[in-house]
Amino acid sequence: VDMLGKHRFRYGQAETENQIGVATGLAYTTVGGDTLQIEVSLAPGKGKLVLTGKLGDVMKESAQIALSYVRTLTNDLGLDADYFEQHDIHIHVPEGAVPKDGPSAGITMTTAIVSAITGKAIKREVGMTGEVTLRGRVLPIGGLKEKSLSAHRAGLSTIIIPKDNERDIDDIPETVREQLTFKLVSQAEEVLAIALDGGFKK
Amino acid sequence: VDMLGKHRFRYGQAETENQIGVATGLAYTTVGGDTLQIEVSLAPGKGKLVLTGKLGDVMKESAQIALSYVRTLTNDLGLDADYFEQHDIHIHVPEGAVPKDGPSAGITMTTAIVSAITGKAIKREVGMTGEVTLRGRVLPIGGLKEKSLSAHRAGLSTIIIPKDNERDIDDIPETVREQLTFKLVSQAEEVLAIALDGGFKK
Amino acid sequence: VDMLGKHRFRYGQAETENQIGVATGLAYTTVGGDTLQIEVSLAPGKGKLVLTGKLGDVMKESAQIALSYVRTLTNDLGLDADYFEQHDIHIHVPEGAVPKDGPSAGITMTTAIVSAITGKAIKREVGMTGEVTLRGRVLPIGGLKEKSLSAHRAGLSTIIIPKDNERDIDDIPETVREQLTFKLVSQAEEVLAIALDGGFKK
Amino acid sequence: VDMLGKHRFRYGQAETENQIGVATGLAYTTVGGDTLQIEVSLAPGKGKLVLTGKLGDVMKESAQIALSYVRTLTNDLGLDADYFEQHDIHIHVPEGAVPKDGPSAGITMTTAIVSAITGKAIKREVGMTGEVTLRGRVLPIGGLKEKSLSAHRAGLSTIIIPKDNERDIDDIPETVREQLTFKLVSQAEEVLAIALDGGFKK
Amino acid sequence: VDMLGKHRFRYGQAETENQIGVATGLAYTTVGGDTLQIEVSLAPGKGKLVLTGKLGDVMKESAQIALSYVRTLTNDLGLDADYFEQHDIHIHVPEGAVPKDGPSAGITMTTAIVSAITGKAIKREVGMTGEVTLRGRVLPIGGLKEKSLSAHRAGLSTIIIPKDNERDIDDIPETVREQLTFKLVSQAEEVLAIALDGGFKK
Amino acid sequence: VDMLGKHRFRYGQAETENQIGVATGLAYTTVGGDTLQIEVSLAPGKGKLVLTGKLGDVMKESAQIALSYVRTLTNDLGLDADYFEQHDIHIHVPEGAVPKDGPSAGITMTTAIVSAITGKAIKREVGMTGEVTLRGRVLPIGGLKEKSLSAHRAGLSTIIIPKDNERDIDDIPETVREQLTFKLVSQAEEVLAIALDGGFKK
Ligand SMILES: [Ca+2]
Ligand SMILES: [Ca+2]
Ligand SMILES: [Ca+2]
Ligand SMILES: [Ca+2]
Ligand SMILES: [Ca+2]
Ligand SMILES: [Ca+2]
Ligand SMILES: [Ca+2]
Ligand SMILES: [Ca+2]
Ligand SMILES: [Ca+2]
Ligand SMILES: [Ca+2]
Ligand SMILES: [Ca+2]
Ligand SMILES: [Ca+2]
Repeated sequence: VDMLGKHRFRYGQAETENQIGVATGLAYTTVGGDTLQIEVSLAPGKGKLVLTGKLGDVMKESAQIALSYVRTLTNDLGLDADYFEQHDIHIHVPEGAVPKDGPSAGITMTTAIVSAITGKAIKREVGMTGEVTLRGRVLPIGGLKEKSLSAHRAGLSTIIIPKDNERDIDDIPETVREQLTFKLVSQAEEVLAIALDGGFKK
Repeated sequence: VDMLGKHRFRYGQAETENQIGVATGLAYTTVGGDTLQIEVSLAPGKGKLVLTGKLGDVMKESAQIALSYVRTLTNDLGLDADYFEQHDIHIHVPEGAVPKDGPSAGITMTTAIVSAITGKAIKREVGMTGEVTLRGRVLPIGGLKEKSLSAHRAGLSTIIIPKDNERDIDDIPETVREQLTFKLVSQAEEVLAIALDGGFKK
Repeated sequence: VDMLGKHRFRYGQAETENQIGVATGLAYTTVGGDTLQIEVSLAPGKGKLVLTGKLGDVMKESAQIALSYVRTLTNDLGLDADYFEQHDIHIHVPEGAVPKDGPSAGITMTTAIVSAITGKAIKREVGMTGEVTLRGRVLPIGGLKEKSLSAHRAGLSTIIIPKDNERDIDDIPETVREQLTFKLVSQAEEVLAIALDGGFKK
Repeated sequence: VDMLGKHRFRYGQAETENQIGVATGLAYTTVGGDTLQIEVSLAPGKGKLVLTGKLGDVMKESAQIALSYVRTLTNDLGLDADYFEQHDIHIHVPEGAVPKDGPSAGITMTTAIVSAITGKAIKREVGMTGEVTLRGRVLPIGGLKEKSLSAHRAGLSTIIIPKDNERDIDDIPETVREQLTFKLVSQAEEVLAIALDGGFKK
Repeated sequence: VDMLGKHRFRYGQAETENQIGVATGLAYTTVGGDTLQIEVSLAPGKGKLVLTGKLGDVMKESAQIALSYVRTLTNDLGLDADYFEQHDIHIHVPEGAVPKDGPSAGITMTTAIVSAITGKAIKREVGMTGEVTLRGRVLPIGGLKEKSLSAHRAGLSTIIIPKDNERDIDDIPETVREQLTFKLVSQAEEVLAIALDGGFKK
Repeated sequence: VDMLGKHRFRYGQAETENQIGVATGLAYTTVGGDTLQIEVSLAPGKGKLVLTGKLGDVMKESAQIALSYVRTLTNDLGLDADYFEQHDIHIHVPEGAVPKDGPSAGITMTTAIVSAITGKAIKREVGMTGEVTLRGRVLPIGGLKEKSLSAHRAGLSTIIIPKDNERDIDDIPETVREQLTFKLVSQAEEVLAIALDGGFKK
């Protein structure tokens, strides 16, 4: 489950321009779907990972998985072998007082980390949801219908979802479904290729 | 929510002169608003962050976010790249026995940290309230009416508030509203420009 | 006991090709058996072990045991004496929101670690279950019947099981039993020899 | 509140001579006031702070605040810039089995630390009570009447109290009030100037 | 008390050959005695001690005591003075899912550590039980009768017990008593001399 | 209070010869007094303090206080300034399964540490009880009568007690009182002078 408590974010509109280090995720709460921002900042350091935003244990583990997956891309990203030992990474999910949990922000965290590291912006009209594994597999999530409604409401045009959720698309109201482009992915590299301004190639 | 327990501070008057490393925040308690001071001290060290003042988890995370945001300004502040690895930072919120929590001291912490680092004083007549995110976004807060009353009572003349709280201004009693200047901000840089003696430019 | 909660994985089919650093385990839940993947990633580092996948204390200890056992093979694997002090190892068990516990993934973790380190792929049609001890002894597990059914359902052809579970094989329905090859082992080296593409010799 | 449990110290007489690294505080318990000793020892080390004496969280934070405040005096005390990274500091409050809490030992801890560092003794006839903040502000405390009675009973002649407690002096019985000298302070430097043998100047 | 929960080990037969780094202990559970193996592995490292096998706090402390005692033998064992700072030690007690506690595995842990370090095997027919102290004193244990029965059942021929348990020997059924050799010890060095293949001399 | 649970030690006789690093303390339990041994071992290391013997928080703090006090004697003991940063110290109180707490083993721990460091033996016929503070003050303890009875029963001839317990001596039965020598102390240096073979001088 992917619970964000009873509060709805007041903070759910698409960005007005492409951002570096900020990716848009889709969340599923007891009162419906919502969008959330994953913010990543980097600083010279000793390889520390700081996680904030009242994240539950599963979501904290998600961040560790996303980071370890990105570390497997060290060569592909043209980074020094000790890059991750020489930088501290902070991942924050506003709003700070709203509890958040669940594994479905995995690909969003992955994308935000890669954007922060490479300096490539993330396309502002793209939202995403999907659990990520250590080798970049994208696993299915719950609440696709509610998440799609919130993406639509926030003004997003494209949402990246796990291939294994394909069968859930027809549960989404037709008006919404027709105004959103659904990108089905099974590997995190595909997410990066779609979401990053300038694309991504291994 | 931004709870400070049942005790009112006995410590809520505006400073008598501009201070370095001390910013005035506005808090919201069950018995009304209050002002609080965020104190920051620096010392040569190894990058340790010490937080005191009976802070709750969300407020502790706020301090981490404020610090990581300030680290993204390392160049703008003219600091060495390893400045934050070579200093310990202590953030304290008196009074020590009163529990405090919530994200709304984010911009106050940010301002106090930058003041302590740069040696620029903070204007004594300025109070502020607003959640900050990792990229310096200022998010809306609750209790603006009560916070404004306490700012007025404490003798402040200017309060910095999130742009997204603009619509809450008309809930403040007219007498108070007319004696306070409201500065609406959406980015932490704007807060620094307003609150720091000598201003701030990126 | 080897409980994985009430949720069944939706993620239980055999891999479509041999993988490096990913081994297939067999789990036993209150609603039957299931397969799970153990993923291992390596990065230059300082010898840190990161464990994710909502693992219980016994399963976390299992990972430590597997790692210490593999460290005793440092010479046999042709690794530098300080290899494990110069690398961080992350072991993840998808799906991230499903709690998992028990010692029976010991040999699966062992195999995944050795595969990640050596770059030798693991045969995609092989599943395994068995507790491992510090000197590589393979201890018996529970739920062999249910685990065998799930292995069969997932399309595996060979399962490696502890020698001490031999007497439990005749509890498995004949149709399933005849389509699976059972490899009985008492030492982890035997597991590596069977599961690794290219085998293993001490 | 500044609770020390139900036990009264059996250890509450003024020192018979001036001591280095030991300051006399005034505490307030459910059964009345009491005096307590704050002991500080220094050793070559790596900047570790050890706190003992069954201290509650607020009192532990008080010690951290006192230490950070003293670190801001590094130059004034003629210390090397890395002095506090090269020494371990232990702060103990006998008696070890009596729980203690509250912020009002702040200035006592500050004084004991400075005495231990400088080797200047603390005047044996002086007791003190007051919360300290990171910039050395002295904040008001509770229980002044009870604390004054215990100071008098212990044979102290002078007590240092926060300026904001001035109005509470007239609650103290006249006989006691007349035999005690009250020193009102608003900054920790004033405390040091009064309590240290040889005084203190910034 | 020396409780191992309600489960009996299925793993309780004497080793078929002498082993290095594996000693046989005797445990006492609510359902009778049992044998257990203490496994120790060494690796180049930084002096880390890893403990697994669902050990309770008293048993974990036992391991620390055993290790500190062995460190006092650094010279006697012909080790470099910094040997223990240059190696990581892992102590595991299978089976991983069975909770274990109590101090009576102290001499077993001591023996397994010394065996792992020296490479001297432990005689396969020897079991042992006894609390160890920091200077190698062997303290009495409970459940000698049950432990002896399990040692006999497992095929052991010799058991090492604390001298202070001598008076408990006559509680053991005569058939068992006559087939076991009891070695009474009061110092850990005596245990090493008896259990290690090749003996031990200080 | 100085509780050791309901179990009486079976281990309470005076040593048969003077020991290095082992001091005899006197404890007070719900079922009467008892003697206990404080064992200290040293090893080359990095200044780590290991505490075992199921010690409660107050007793663990006692050990830290004893150690910090001994560190203030670095010069008097003829040790290098960085001695304590170059050694690990382990303090153990058998029996490992019996919970122990309270501050009254302070001087016993102090004596055992100094003995271990200097190699001076502790006189076997001497027992002791007393809380120690950071500057070596000896504070009074409870249960002197019961502790004296157990000291007598264990065959000790001399017990060191706090000066402030002098008035409690006449509560001890005359037969016991006459066979014990009571040494009244107010400073830890006096304890060392009495208990160490060869004495001690600052
Ligand atoms: Ca929102
Ligand atoms: Ca469907
Ligand atoms: Ca106030
Ligand atoms: Ca309004
Ligand atoms: Ca599955
Ligand atoms: Ca069968
Ligand atoms: Ca007292
Ligand atoms: Ca008054
Ligand atoms: Ca067994
Ligand atoms: Ca008997
Ligand atoms: Ca005893
Ligand atoms: Ca008396």
